[in-house]
Order: sequence, then structure tokens, then C-alpha cells
Amino acid sequence: MSESEAALPATPPAALPAGSKDVLAVEAQELRAVEGAVRGRFNAFGYREVMTPVLEYADVIDRAQEGGLRDAFRMFDDAGRVLVLRPDLTIPIARLAATRMPDHPGAVRVSYLARVFRPPSPGRPRSSEQRQAGIELMGEAGPGGDAEVIALLVGSLRAAGLEGLQVAVGDVSLTAAILDGLGIAAAPREAMRAALGARNFVEWRRLARAAAGDGSRADLLVALPTLRGGRELLDRIDGEIPSAAPACARLRVVLDLLEGHGVADAVVLDLGVLREWRYYSGVVFEAYAPGVGAPVAMGGRYDDLAGRFGRPRPAVGFGITLDVLHQSLLAANGEPAPPRDGVVLVGGLDALAPVATAARAAGLTVIALTSDDPDADALAAADGWRWVARPSGDGFSVLDRTTGRVDDHARLDEVTRSPA
Amino acid sequence: MSESEAALPATPPAALPAGSKDVLAVEAQELRAVEGAVRGRFNAFGYREVMTPVLEYADVIDRAQEGGLRDAFRMFDDAGRVLVLRPDLTIPIARLAATRMPDHPGAVRVSYLARVFRPPSPGRPRSSEQRQAGIELMGEAGPGGDAEVIALLVGSLRAAGLEGLQVAVGDVSLTAAILDGLGIAAAPREAMRAALGARNFVEWRRLARAAAGDGSRADLLVALPTLRGGRELLDRIDGEIPSAAPACARLRVVLDLLEGHGVADAVVLDLGVLREWRYYSGVVFEAYAPGVGAPVAMGGRYDDLAGRFGRPRPAVGFGITLDVLHQSLLAANGEPAPPRDGVVLVGGLDALAPVATAARAAGLTVIALTSDDPDADALAAADGWRWVARPSGDGFSVLDRTTGRVDDHARLDEVTRSPA
Repeated sequence: MSESEAALPATPPAALPAGSKDVLAVEAQELRAVEGAVRGRFNAFGYREVMTPVLEYADVIDRAQEGGLRDAFRMFDDAGRVLVLRPDLTIPIARLAATRMPDHPGAVRVSYLARVFRPPSPGRPRSSEQRQAGIELMGEAGPGGDAEVIALLVGSLRAAGLEGLQVAVGDVSLTAAILDGLGIAAAPREAMRAALGARNFVEWRRLARAAAGDGSRADLLVALPTLRGGRELLDRIDGEIPSAAPACARLRVVLDLLEGHGVADAVVLDLGVLREWRYYSGVVFEAYAPGVGAPVAMGGRYDDLAGRFGRPRPAVGFGITLDVLHQSLLAANGEPAPPRDGVVLVGGLDALAPVATAARAAGLTVIALTSDDPDADALAAADGWRWVARPSGDGFSVLDRTTGRVDDHARLDEVTRSPA
Repeated sequence: MSESEAALPATPPAALPAGSKDVLAVEAQELRAVEGAVRGRFNAFGYREVMTPVLEYADVIDRAQEGGLRDAFRMFDDAGRVLVLRPDLTIPIARLAATRMPDHPGAVRVSYLARVFRPPSPGRPRSSEQRQAGIELMGEAGPGGDAEVIALLVGSLRAAGLEGLQVAVGDVSLTAAILDGLGIAAAPREAMRAALGARNFVEWRRLARAAAGDGSRADLLVALPTLRGGRELLDRIDGEIPSAAPACARLRVVLDLLEGHGVADAVVLDLGVLREWRYYSGVVFEAYAPGVGAPVAMGGRYDDLAGRFGRPRPAVGFGITLDVLHQSLLAANGEPAPPRDGVVLVGGLDALAPVATAARAAGLTVIALTSDDPDADALAAADGWRWVARPSGDGFSVLDRTTGRVDDHARLDEVTRSPA
């Protein structure tokens, strides 16, 4: 044991590391329901699930990310190579598609439902482990791909029960075209990028004014990160800066297609969505829900990533952070869950095991107790089961916890026909 | 960079660590189907899913395991504490139940569906990451609990489609009673345990003969790890060794209950199932399927584990290794999957986006391509989709890949009514 280890206080007997947490049954069931709803939408669009390992080589993942990965759990393997717990799924999926599906003839549609891992930073506590559900559309370069992915995001979040959703859509290629059109040089551009990355809009305004001077074109640049709206925004931009017209035209096509997909009401153009500027190459978006500050999902187009694994393909995708989605659903609908359909059967663990077996075969959930168990009612209350059944004469005496009534039934599967 | 790192050859551009693997779409879909079937049985018995973090403190996990954990991925957190990627789920679930559900009034039934992590050993290659599905029944000490858990294991594996399953059931308390009854001293007992742990039956026989001498009682001890059968085995044992009678009587009750559960045909007594002697305290079992050498599942009773987290509760449970289950299903049924119901729609990504949206709302899977995509048939073949639809007049010209026929349809959702 090293000195630094010896200096640590003893770990409490059942402690969890910072950023780790247990998920109990009620929350786990809700999370699985959300996953099921999201997966149903992924399936409807033909996105097929793939799975990648939690452990990857750090240099393989670093190579795909300009400047390398920042926050990740790292360790050594037996040979002394650095392993990383995947901090992201877009890069592993790009690796998988490039190496395992290099000859696929068309657009590749894949989905995932998996955990990512990032160390908690001191002062900014967050979960070390996040469950994410996402998709990647690879090999489709046009605006139709952008629109499908945004439509699928809206459809997935709505299928999970989210209301009042808003997807803010920006475009890093449009932003680049505006800077090009204004002739902003490399040095101030880099400083402006850094200001945006730090979400320091005051600094952005100062730099933009210094670089572009005065006039309506300069005003546009100064206001850029705060511009939100619809098509009128695009009209203003290509009116001022003709070289941005192609990027504006493409975004207009995306907006048209989103109307065809029936999701245009959830979408707003937002040129402040510029966060991951180096990584993305086109459309970028973030989904926000009422009641939570963090984005529920984020995504965009990154046409240059797959090429770093030897098989260039344009790509667009998103990832939903399921814990944030779950929080926002709870914030919108905080009622306690009603009792779950399930019969606590006294004796099901011994004398009535065949009865329990038959009732399960008929589709009932049966929680079996021994014949002498005195805690059946308390157990049903603790776990939220609706019925408690005890043998009585030739049949059963059944408490329905939703009504408080006790009725006699000849057969256990009759209980599901009781009025609630 | 240290010298040893500098000496490593460069990692190939998209390599995976030893023991890590990708799962492509066909296999992922099969794995999810297996998970769904297993989860359905867990639900029918009232086992509710909980989730624990991948990262735990190493000393918390080590404390629960006599002699400490052997194989596990370890790393340091920022404070210098050792973290471990959970190598097992029984211990984390025991920690969770003891700390998060200490006041639960009755038997606690929980399930999990999660990955465990163990470093591959040189010369014995295996996956670093295994998906496991399992349950724990805590707070139920009697034979009814043993029987329910074995019945649920059989039911879960059968629900997943496994045929020809056999569950070998031993009992470490019966084995201990036999050794006690024969007066085997501590030193030879320890050596015998080590021989069994190494599956060295020649050494077991030598030690047993040396410790017990000759006669029918000694013969029983010598043969112990190879004894397999039904009730007649229990009759032989308590006939020879009266002090083993209580353990035999309890196992007879378990066998009776397994008949009530309708699974007795899948169960055989096997006193060679003794592998984890220190850890388990009662019944122990392993499930084997035709076509694969590794056990599909293993489990047993460990009444002393929860107490190490401050809340003693008897417990019995099992874990299914889903990859092994999947392999044995493949070995039994190796036919290629038929095409999946799904329509590749040329134009669904642009002009026909509203048609795709409507068809998905009607329950169809629609894979959308641009109007000018020349690879629709190749894509459908690569991904196994059944239909390819192209706009034609007022409707659609639809290829059915199961028949090779091309028919005209007025509406896209008519394709699902085609005869196969």
C-alpha cells in the first residue's frame, strides 16, 4: 500500500463512488418504459441496434477526436496499453461502421442504447455513468438525412411522453459561411470560437465588433449567437451576406422536409447552437424540455469522422440522455404511480405453488409467499402490488388495494376482471 | 511516456482490446429478444428490476468476498481510492438491498440485466464484458425459496427458446453434513475442497480414501463429486449417514415443490456442483444446454452475504450469461433469419417524406431513401428488409423479396397484406 493510500480514511462499508448511483425498482421500470418507447421509433425508421464494448483503446478513441478526449476514465491493460471507458458513443459507432460494415451498399442506419462514462469534475457534480439512446445515419449527405434525423428525435421524445419539446437547430457551415463572407481572419475567428465555446457572449460581441466594424452586416455578426426564429432569419442572412446563400438554401429545404415529417412545430432555428464547432460539419441541434436545464438530447452532422477510421462516409445523428429525459417526464407528471397489477399469493411458495404456476401461465404476475407469512399486506404496500390473495375454502379471499374491498374468488385469474 | 509504453507497437487504427467485441445488428436483435423473454418471466414472478453502477469501490466489493476478488479491472479515482468495474452482480445487489431497502417488510425480489467485467486471462481467452440477467430472492430462508428460484430459472431459459435444458442441483450444506458425519478433520477437508475447486477428481478420490478408509460410507465419500440422480441418491445418503438426514429432507421438499412448479423434468441432483464452496451456504445449481460447454446460468443460496453490508437476510438467486444462452440457441437453431418486415421507400427521404410518416404511424417500418438512390435493392438485401417500394403512377411498385414478385399498390400499408 502506498503512502497516499494509507492516508485515506476507510471507505464506509457500503459507499458508492462519487457520480455512481443505484436505481431502485420504480425508477428502473420508468427508465425501461422510456427506452421501449424510444426504441419503437428507432425501429419504425429502420435503425437497427448495434452494441459496442465499454472498454476501448484510448488512442483509437483519441485519434477520432481533434485535440484528444478530455474527460474519461482510463486504466492500463496487461500489456501496458491505455484503455478507456467509452465517454461517447458516436466515435465507437463510427469505428464499428467503418471496420465492420465497410462494404454496405447504402445508407447505414444504426441505433444504440448504452452507457457512457465520464469522471465527475469537482465543483460540477454529475453522474459518472449516463444511459444514452441514439442513432447514426451514415452515407446520406443531403438535407433529407438532416430532416429525417431531427424528425426521428422529435418523434422519439414525443413517443416517450414528452410535451412542450423544442429542438434548437443551428448549422456550423452556415456560421462559417457568414464569417467567410465578412472576411474575418483566422486569429479573431479562433478567439470568437473560444468565446462561444465558453458561452461568453459578452466577449463574442466585443470580438465581433472589433473584427467586423459597424453597419448592418457587422450587427448581424454581433447578434449571431442570439439569433432565433424561422425562415425570416435565413432571409435576413442571405440578404446581408450573399455567400451564405447556399447554406441558407439547404436549411430551407430541411425546414420544408420537417413540415412533411409533421414536426416543424417543435423546431426553431437557433444560431447559438454552436457548441462543438470543431467536431460537427453541418447542422447541429439540441432538444430542450420544460422543467430541466440540461438538453435532453443533442446531435448534428459530422461528415469527417468516419474517414478517420479509413471509410469516409457523411454522417448525422443524435444521442438522448435518458436520465435527463426521465427527469423532465417526472417534472411534467409527478403523480405517484397507481398499484401495479400483481397478486401477492399467501402459500404460493409452498402448498399453492401449482396455483401460482397456472396463474402465471394465464398471464398474471404472482408474488409467492409461504403459507405462514404474516407480512403479505405490508409487502404488497411496500412494492405497490394491487391484490393480496389468501386461500379460503375452495377458493381465495382477495384484497384489492385500489378499493380496499375483499372479495371471494373461485379462481385466481378472476381478480384481473375486478372493476378498479 | 514511460519506456515500457514507448516500446509498445502502435495500436492499429481501429483495434479493440482483447476480450472486447462489437455486436452487429442481427445478433443484437436476437440478444434483445432473449432479454425480453427472460424479463417477461422475471416480471411474472414479481421480480422487479434494479440497476447498480458499473463503478464501485474495490474495498466495498472485496469485503463481501472471502479472500477478496481475484479478477477485476481496477483504476484510481481522483482521491486515490481504488475503483473496480463490477465483476459480479450478486454483491452489488446485496449492497443495494442492505442499504437502500433495509426496512422492506417481506421477501425482497429484485432482478437485473447488466454487464459484468473481468480481464481476459492469457491462455484462457474470454469476453471481458458479459451481459447477465439474474434475480435475487432475499429474506426467504425456506425450501420454497430454493424451489421458486430454480423454477424461475428453468422457466426463463425455456421462454427464451432453449430446449434440452438440464439444471444440476447440489447443496453445500449437504456436502458439509456428509463430511461432518464421517468425522473428516479440518486439514484433509481443506485439501479436498481445493481438489474439488480445481476439478481434480483423482486427487479428491485419493484424499477421501485416505481420510475415510474403507467400507460403504467411505465409498460414498469417494464417489461424492460424481453422484448424479434423483431421490434415490438422497435415500442412499441418509441411509449411510444419519446426520445428513435434515439436509436430505430439505432437498426432498425442494424436489416436491419443483414438481408443483412443473419443472422437475429439467432438474437432476448432482453433488459435483460444489464449485463456490466458501461463498454459498445451501443449494447450488448450474444450468447446461446442448451444444455449449460453459454453463448457461449458475446460482445458489448465500445466506451470509447481506450481513456483510449490515442487514442480514437469507438469499438465493441466479445469473444467466446471455451470450452463452444466445450461443446455445444458435447451436440449436442455425437457420438464417427470414427477411424482416420493413419497406425500403425510394423517395421517402425527400418527396415522399409525408408518405413515410403516415406509413410509420400505421405501424410499418419504413427505411427512407432519396428519390435518386440507385441502391435500394442492394440496401434491402444487405439489411434483410422484405419490401422495396418505388413511386409508380398514383401509387407504388413494390418488390417482395420473399417471393421476387413486383406488384402495384395504391397505398404503402397494403404491402403488409401481401401473402408471403
